[in-house]
Amino acid sequence: MDVVTTVVEMRRWAETARREGGVIGFVPTMGALHHGHASLIRAARAECERVVVSLFVNPTQFGPGEDFERYPRTMEADRALCERERVDALFAPSVAEMYPPGSETTVDIGTLGDVLCGAFRPGHFRGVATVVAKLFVIVTPHRAYFGQKDYQQTIVIQRLVADLGFGIAVVICPTVRERDGLAASSRNVYLSPDERRRAGSLFAALEEARRLIATGERSAGKIREAMRVILTSQGLVRVDYIAVIHPETLQPVDVVTGRVVVALAVWIGTTRLIDNAVIEAAHG
Amino acid sequence: MDVVTTVVEMRRWAETARREGGVIGFVPTMGALHHGHASLIRAARAECERVVVSLFVNPTQFGPGEDFERYPRTMEADRALCERERVDALFAPSVAEMYPPGSETTVDIGTLGDVLCGAFRPGHFRGVATVVAKLFVIVTPHRAYFGQKDYQQTIVIQRLVADLGFGIAVVICPTVRERDGLAASSRNVYLSPDERRRAGSLFAALEEARRLIATGERSAGKIREAMRVILTSQGLVRVDYIAVIHPETLQPVDVVTGRVVVALAVWIGTTRLIDNAVIEAAHG
Repeated sequence: MDVVTTVVEMRRWAETARREGGVIGFVPTMGALHHGHASLIRAARAECERVVVSLFVNPTQFGPGEDFERYPRTMEADRALCERERVDALFAPSVAEMYPPGSETTVDIGTLGDVLCGAFRPGHFRGVATVVAKLFVIVTPHRAYFGQKDYQQTIVIQRLVADLGFGIAVVICPTVRERDGLAASSRNVYLSPDERRRAGSLFAALEEARRLIATGERSAGKIREAMRVILTSQGLVRVDYIAVIHPETLQPVDVVTGRVVVALAVWIGTTRLIDNAVIEAAHG
Repeated sequence: MDVVTTVVEMRRWAETARREGGVIGFVPTMGALHHGHASLIRAARAECERVVVSLFVNPTQFGPGEDFERYPRTMEADRALCERERVDALFAPSVAEMYPPGSETTVDIGTLGDVLCGAFRPGHFRGVATVVAKLFVIVTPHRAYFGQKDYQQTIVIQRLVADLGFGIAVVICPTVRERDGLAASSRNVYLSPDERRRAGSLFAALEEARRLIATGERSAGKIREAMRVILTSQGLVRVDYIAVIHPETLQPVDVVTGRVVVALAVWIGTTRLIDNAVIEAAHG
C-alpha cells in the first residue's frame, strides 16, 4: 500500500492509475476507521482495480465549539486496517497541505445543505462539499463510496457531482450496525458505558417508524411523536431533529406516500449521534 | 475538429486524450472570438498535443440588467476560426447542459472576487469560478490559457486552481490590441464609430501611467488623477474604477514600489470596457 501525504504526489499517483486504464474506487474518510468504513472499502475492492482511501479530519466542516480537536485520530490502526483490506493508496494529507496559507475557495451546495444537520451545523456542508470537491479533483475516482448513515451527505455529494460535472458514480452502502442496532460511527467512542446502552434507542425509534408505516400509519407527525417517546424513555431529550423527509429533496413530508427517509439527530451527553432509515410505504 | 455539445461526450473525449498521454491545452471562452482569442489558441497549439476551446456564454457571471442577452453570438465564425487555428475539440454546450434543472452548487473565491470588477458586478466572479471549475473538471486540461486583459480573472483562476487542487498550469497571455491600443474584446462591437474612436483613451491612460512611473512618479493618487484627466478629455466620465493595485492581492497601493498593476473599468455609452497594465517601477 502506498501512503501518500501530498496533493502533488496523490495527483501523480492517480494520473498514472488513470493512464494504466483501471477503475479507481475512492473512500473518503476522516479516519478513526471502524467496520462501517471497512464495508465501504470492501465494496470498492470488489468493484474497482484501484482503491484509494483518504484520511483527513477536515477542519472546515466543524463549527466553533464542535469536536474537531477531540475527534479520534488513530492513524496507525487506520493504516493497518487499510493494509488488511488491500487498499492501494492511503491519502493522508496534513491540514496545511489541504488548506495552504491564502486558501479562500469554498464550494456551496445550496439549499440541500441548509436543512436537517445543516440547520444545526451552519457551514458544515459547505465544508464537506469543499473538501470532497478537492479530493475528487485530486484523486479523480471513477466511483466513490459513502455510507447511508450520513444520508444528507450522500444527497449533497450527488448534487455536487452532478453540478460540477464530475464523471463519478456515487455508491451508497448500507449502514453498518452494532448488535443493538447502533450505527457504527467514529463518535461512538465518546459514549460512556451508560450512554452507549441508551444509544440503542436511536435504532429502536427508527424500527418503530418502520413498524408504524408497515402497519398503515401515514401521519408523519404521529410517527415522529412515537419515535420521540422511545428516545425520551431512555432519557434522550435533547433532540436536534426527528424528521420524515422526501428522499431526494430532503423536504419534510406530512403524509407518508411511497418512499420516505426517517432521520434523526440526538444528543447523548456531549455526543451528537445521527441515524436514518429509508422506508417504503406499501400502496393501498 | 470535433464539435462536442454534451458534458458526457466532452468528458469521454478528454479521458481518451488523457489515456493516450498527450498534454491537453484549454482555452475557455464566451465565443465571439477575436484575435485576442486566436492568440490564446496559438499559444496552446504551440505547447500542447491537444487543444480544446470551450464556447459558452455563461449566464451566472452576468448580473441583472447586464448584457447577457445581447452578448454577441457568432457560432459559425467561431467554428471557422477554431478550424483555421487547428483546434482539436470545440466544446459548445447549451445552458441547460451546463446548468440542468436542480443545479445549485456555486464556487466562491473569497475576497479576491469582491474588489475591482467584483465590487461593481456582485456575484460575477462566483459565476466565473463556478463555470471554470466545472469546465476544468470536464475537460481535465494540463494547461489553461487566459488573456491578461481580464487581469482580475487570471488571479481568481489561479486561486481556484490552487485551492481546489487542480494540476493545471494557468498561462497568462499578453493583451492583444488594436492599432490605437484598444484591447481586443468581444464587447467592442457594441461601440458606435464615435465611441470606438474615444475608446482609445483607456490605453492612452495606461500609457500615461507607465510614463509617469518610468519618470519617477510614485504616488498612486497622482497617477490615477492623470489617468482620469485623459479619460475626461474624451468625455469618458463614467468610471467604475481607476486603480493601482498589488499584482497578487489586488489590494490598492498608495505608493508605487516594485511591480504594480494599473487597472481601469470605464463606461462608454452603454458599454463597459476594462483594461490594465503590469508596470515595474525601477529601483532608486
